[in-house]
Amino acid sequence: MQIAILGAGMVGRAMAIDLAKKYDVTSFDVSEHSLQLLMQKNTQVKAVQADLSDYNNYTALLAPFHFVICAVPGFMGYNALQAIIKAKKDVVDISFFPENALELDALAKENNVTAIVDCGVAPGMSNLILGYYNEKMSVIDFDCLVGGLPKKRVKPFEYKAPFSPIDVLEEYTRPARYVENNCIVTKPALSDAELIDFENVGTLESFNTDGLRSILYTMVHIPNMKEKTLRYPGHIDLMKGLIKAGFLSEEPIDIKGQKISPIEFASALLFKQWKLGTAEEEFTIMQIKVSDKHKTICYDLFDMYDAATETSSMSRTTGYTCTAALNLLIENLFTEKGVFPPELVGKHERCFNFIMDYLKERNVVYKKTETIAPNH
Amino acid sequence: MQIAILGAGMVGRAMAIDLAKKYDVTSFDVSEHSLQLLMQKNTQVKAVQADLSDYNNYTALLAPFHFVICAVPGFMGYNALQAIIKAKKDVVDISFFPENALELDALAKENNVTAIVDCGVAPGMSNLILGYYNEKMSVIDFDCLVGGLPKKRVKPFEYKAPFSPIDVLEEYTRPARYVENNCIVTKPALSDAELIDFENVGTLESFNTDGLRSILYTMVHIPNMKEKTLRYPGHIDLMKGLIKAGFLSEEPIDIKGQKISPIEFASALLFKQWKLGTAEEEFTIMQIKVSDKHKTICYDLFDMYDAATETSSMSRTTGYTCTAALNLLIENLFTEKGVFPPELVGKHERCFNFIMDYLKERNVVYKKTETIAPNH
Repeated sequence: MQIAILGAGMVGRAMAIDLAKKYDVTSFDVSEHSLQLLMQKNTQVKAVQADLSDYNNYTALLAPFHFVICAVPGFMGYNALQAIIKAKKDVVDISFFPENALELDALAKENNVTAIVDCGVAPGMSNLILGYYNEKMSVIDFDCLVGGLPKKRVKPFEYKAPFSPIDVLEEYTRPARYVENNCIVTKPALSDAELIDFENVGTLESFNTDGLRSILYTMVHIPNMKEKTLRYPGHIDLMKGLIKAGFLSEEPIDIKGQKISPIEFASALLFKQWKLGTAEEEFTIMQIKVSDKHKTICYDLFDMYDAATETSSMSRTTGYTCTAALNLLIENLFTEKGVFPPELVGKHERCFNFIMDYLKERNVVYKKTETIAPNH
Repeated sequence: MQIAILGAGMVGRAMAIDLAKKYDVTSFDVSEHSLQLLMQKNTQVKAVQADLSDYNNYTALLAPFHFVICAVPGFMGYNALQAIIKAKKDVVDISFFPENALELDALAKENNVTAIVDCGVAPGMSNLILGYYNEKMSVIDFDCLVGGLPKKRVKPFEYKAPFSPIDVLEEYTRPARYVENNCIVTKPALSDAELIDFENVGTLESFNTDGLRSILYTMVHIPNMKEKTLRYPGHIDLMKGLIKAGFLSEEPIDIKGQKISPIEFASALLFKQWKLGTAEEEFTIMQIKVSDKHKTICYDLFDMYDAATETSSMSRTTGYTCTAALNLLIENLFTEKGVFPPELVGKHERCFNFIMDYLKERNVVYKKTETIAPNH
């Protein structure tokens, strides 16, 4: 079984190492440095330097492989996924591109391809859990709180970005949509800041981000759905100040004869400050609540950096969900053709259980609790 | 009587118009736009375009003049003043340069020149008042609160800079010195934020800035001296956030193949936001308190933009103090040779009264109150 992984970033490398235990894995990346980091940890994976923005070359590049994982940067994701589908390869995607993946559904069906997209933590596991319970109960409320944070808090941001700061900054400036009483409500990003206590990490602050993605369209019958991002308290106020002061504006200003947009400058300035060290302790925290009239099902995730393998929690929680889904395809447990966000996979009990078990084997544990609604 | 005014910025223009009522005035500036603005308001002033950074040319340039006002940007101020002194011209300076003006004292004496420096509001009137009362009482406390603010408050800064934003940003980052129990205390700029109510403008916020300048050296016998700057509440917190986040750092970062320091970028970004419109209402507020064991003398200034002549309060309060001092020289009321900050002028009753009267004639009114110390 030959597997191609497109992208050898932090998460891409963790996935290559995970899959190499059972299969022949080839990792592709344009960065020699990223491929070297992978080779240092695992010599079984084949590392190939390649310009993955050359989408016309995908059919030739991917010909030898049975399955593909797409873990390229978001801005390349849509084109990469389209090229993989045209190459007629089943694929799991975690590039989290901004375009609507369902626009590639017809192309995937035409090419007899299965493509599971957005298959990380949130989006990813949040969708899977909602898809599962949507089959079992008449959901009226879906709530997702999620954050990836450094263990050590350093002023003023108390934050590290496991990916490019510009992606985070764009999340902070893009208006956020949620569903309330069957209506899509659009609010500024960073709105509705709220302090919430967590058992493992103390008090965090939640705020609106535009994270619902596909479930805005696939779960239109659910009257209330909301995703909020978590940060250490204070982070949001500082970001709001920066935004109000114009430091995240996209409108370029002239400086030393060049046009530079404040968000570009901020991204460059924050790159060092926000860079997550390769052995820096961080954690992922997520709480998913799915409610009907009678009860609330709650899934809590608290996952730490793994010091033994020097694998970040972000890589573990995102990457292993993606590799779990790939194993689902390899083992023929999900065979529909087209493009599927995880809620359309999680609706099948065998798929949901398979992924949950796969994660538990890797010590990524979702703790489930159930509470009866007080009035029933 | 021929007077040269070096610099036709906002304050320079107001001074030219004030002095042209009695004397022949020539304004010099490199900016044709600034000179045109002056010409539109007053056709009696002679406007000459000149590169005032060509300091070797000052002797020739200034030969026809009896007195000089130096109102060039701060970074040029020291060199300009030195060149004026070498040209043997009596001068009043409001360039507020960062270097120590007293280093030019010997040169001024050598050239038989009188140079009054720092002759605006604060520094300026604050020094003059302290110099006056220092002769009359055994001062133990000197407190100065001062701010120039727009009447209309616009989020997030609620501030407009009548001069280059970079000068304000540097004031926000330079450590602030004050005197407490005869010791010079150095604190970070923006420290000791404190809300204070004012009759005319409501609640403002004060914070430490490094504004004492010459009186740190000329008034060493006074045990407590402090100057704080005033802004609308909220401004300081936002500036602190920007500083902590690195947006006012001087260390350059690489962007698009160029090295640009964050403070340069911030200055360019804020230039438009902070630009004071030519007919935009603003005000100057200052409170000076000079105390001995028995009483406190308080001077309150609240001065508004003058709509009739479209003259900013900043120009009125700063510029007319400077022109008052120049008239002092013209009328032979201050004839000592050397470099003098205003506290060394204000110590003479006739000089103090002359300047106070000159300002009152122009409706810049310092309201004096005296309170007896509660324990006496």
